Amino acid sequence: MANRIYIFDTTLRDGEQVPGCQLTTNEKVQVALELERLGVDVIEAGFPISSPGDFRSVVEIAKAVTNPTVCALSRAVAGDIDAAGEALKHAKRGRIHTGIGASDIHIRNKFSSTREAILEQAVRAVKHARTYVDDVEFYAEDAGRANLDFLCRLTEAVIKAGATVVNIPDTTGYCLPGEYGEKIKHIYNCVPNVDKATISIHCHNDLGLATANSLSGIMNGARQIECTINGIGERAGNTSLEEVVMAMNVHKELGFETGIDTTRLYPVSQLVSGLMRMPVQANKAIVGRNAFAHSSGIHQDGHLKHTENYEIMNPLDVGVDKSLIILTARSGRHALKHRLELLGYRYDRPTLDTIYTRFLDMADVRKEVNDKDLMELVR
Amino acid sequence: MANRIYIFDTTLRDGEQVPGCQLTTNEKVQVALELERLGVDVIEAGFPISSPGDFRSVVEIAKAVTNPTVCALSRAVAGDIDAAGEALKHAKRGRIHTGIGASDIHIRNKFSSTREAILEQAVRAVKHARTYVDDVEFYAEDAGRANLDFLCRLTEAVIKAGATVVNIPDTTGYCLPGEYGEKIKHIYNCVPNVDKATISIHCHNDLGLATANSLSGIMNGARQIECTINGIGERAGNTSLEEVVMAMNVHKELGFETGIDTTRLYPVSQLVSGLMRMPVQANKAIVGRNAFAHSSGIHQDGHLKHTENYEIMNPLDVGVDKSLIILTARSGRHALKHRLELLGYRYDRPTLDTIYTRFLDMADVRKEVNDKDLMELVR
Repeated sequence: MANRIYIFDTTLRDGEQVPGCQLTTNEKVQVALELERLGVDVIEAGFPISSPGDFRSVVEIAKAVTNPTVCALSRAVAGDIDAAGEALKHAKRGRIHTGIGASDIHIRNKFSSTREAILEQAVRAVKHARTYVDDVEFYAEDAGRANLDFLCRLTEAVIKAGATVVNIPDTTGYCLPGEYGEKIKHIYNCVPNVDKATISIHCHNDLGLATANSLSGIMNGARQIECTINGIGERAGNTSLEEVVMAMNVHKELGFETGIDTTRLYPVSQLVSGLMRMPVQANKAIVGRNAFAHSSGIHQDGHLKHTENYEIMNPLDVGVDKSLIILTARSGRHALKHRLELLGYRYDRPTLDTIYTRFLDMADVRKEVNDKDLMELVR
Repeated sequence: MANRIYIFDTTLRDGEQVPGCQLTTNEKVQVALELERLGVDVIEAGFPISSPGDFRSVVEIAKAVTNPTVCALSRAVAGDIDAAGEALKHAKRGRIHTGIGASDIHIRNKFSSTREAILEQAVRAVKHARTYVDDVEFYAEDAGRANLDFLCRLTEAVIKAGATVVNIPDTTGYCLPGEYGEKIKHIYNCVPNVDKATISIHCHNDLGLATANSLSGIMNGARQIECTINGIGERAGNTSLEEVVMAMNVHKELGFETGIDTTRLYPVSQLVSGLMRMPVQANKAIVGRNAFAHSSGIHQDGHLKHTENYEIMNPLDVGVDKSLIILTARSGRHALKHRLELLGYRYDRPTLDTIYTRFLDMADVRKEVNDKDLMELVR
């Protein structure tokens, strides 16, 4: 199982804290059950100290799900950790996620502290969390901009203190894929007890690089990816679960495996988008309305001749019913003919030419030509 | 100028062919003028043979803009090229973009042809295009999946035939960044006349990797990036212009330069989204509504202490007025205090604690707490 990648979903924590995305406890339980059906390994259910509603949600999710580990967030302070431990009391498998800023920017500007003091606080927090659960994940906030030697020392210390997972987040979405992969590789090479824990990836998408950075992370040794449905999360969001999972699925040569049932991706995406009132843009990879739509003449013609010409994934693999073909002024004769045939109309070449000319006029005006328009056209 | 990266915008061609995104000629001219103001190097204005409306739009854009090169798409057939050449008659700087499928999948399944025949057709097309303009770009469609030796032979042949730019598109959005970069590097190493042309990147975002692939391409020698505003385009879209430009801008250590005025990014994004009726999702990198919003307690507190803690870009640099702070149940005391102070309310610690408790109750119910809600709360 050396190439098994664990999927840590933080839709209900990093996603849910986005303006306007707040869910009720019942809605969170509904999403958690769908995430379980999707096959995620860990559900980050909330940040219990932050509000009574969040505390309650972690309790109810812990009661509701069976297979995934349920994880609760805390800062590296006793009160936060106590709340997380308390909220996880009913979890079959509970994990406390605790951590603190690791970059000098955060240490100086946010905590007015020093590397040594931060390291001690981190160790104390992990030990305290271990009094509640056997599974403790430590996050080294802003690791993407942290001093690499300090990051290694911190990683070694928290593993020694009992951390089972160490999260190396690119909190500000700053890293380039090569740079981020090098960081992970360096940690693997320089932390002597690294084999006693799982290294985790948590990327933000501020420069549009979260998926690439996550892949770079696992190609360099990390074995857990933190991500969200539809890539929601702080600012430009987190790594999209659906993108990173399908990248591994399409690129089987990488040899990675997950526990995800990819045919649940589209239904879960729709559920989360609906409940959180966060529309997914049409051109969103994997789960956008147009992700499998072909509209240009060149593409439609090629697509009709051989699906593989323009599709690297079968829409059915992600739970989308079929490749949609929508006609526009850029559609060719062949696409028009095919669509008409699906509607039961067959024409000889000259008649089709006439219809095609009229079709182009209509498409120039109406932008999209649907089946009803086509039937009006041929009548 | 060895590190000058040319930005080739195809919003009006690859973007405009998306279902529902069709624009009138006047709207296209409006977008083209904004793209000129943004500072793009090339505007792909349309596919003239595809419809009379598209032909007319290329003519009008060619007349309207001064600085950017205006480019017209064609397949590698004489009729297409004639239409493109005709449409570009009024361009100050015109470019014909012609090409054909280069992968065996396309050659076999789409053209029922052979590598040799495709290569001859490509050479003929470039020579024909050169009778109209001095600037001819050749696209090797589906290069992402093409045989690398054939791709090198094809590149060499079209450059010899007069191509000034060779576009190596990842048409299906299949490639991983490392793999795509290797392809570009191989072309640079193996094509003897490669210094006589610019190698161009054209990536699709089916796996969420278009921005990373484009960066990998230029880090391996390519000097033109084809992209669109908001990443619109076929299926999951093209490389987002705003992402790739800001990645170069934030990572100055890469040493790349463009002609883009980044403060125009947000206004152009809004214009294109509005005209094409393609909403940009809130968590879209750079131009999404939430791209610079901070909502969680941890982040808001850190953000208030020092902007750099959570921001790698200044919102003003991309034309966004300010970092928005929106309060939710995840907001901390410090964020509430700051917001109240902005509204003119100052309280001692015990009073603030009372207000904070009431605020959390309100936030649990209302999800987002805006300024009006806050004023209701403190009255």
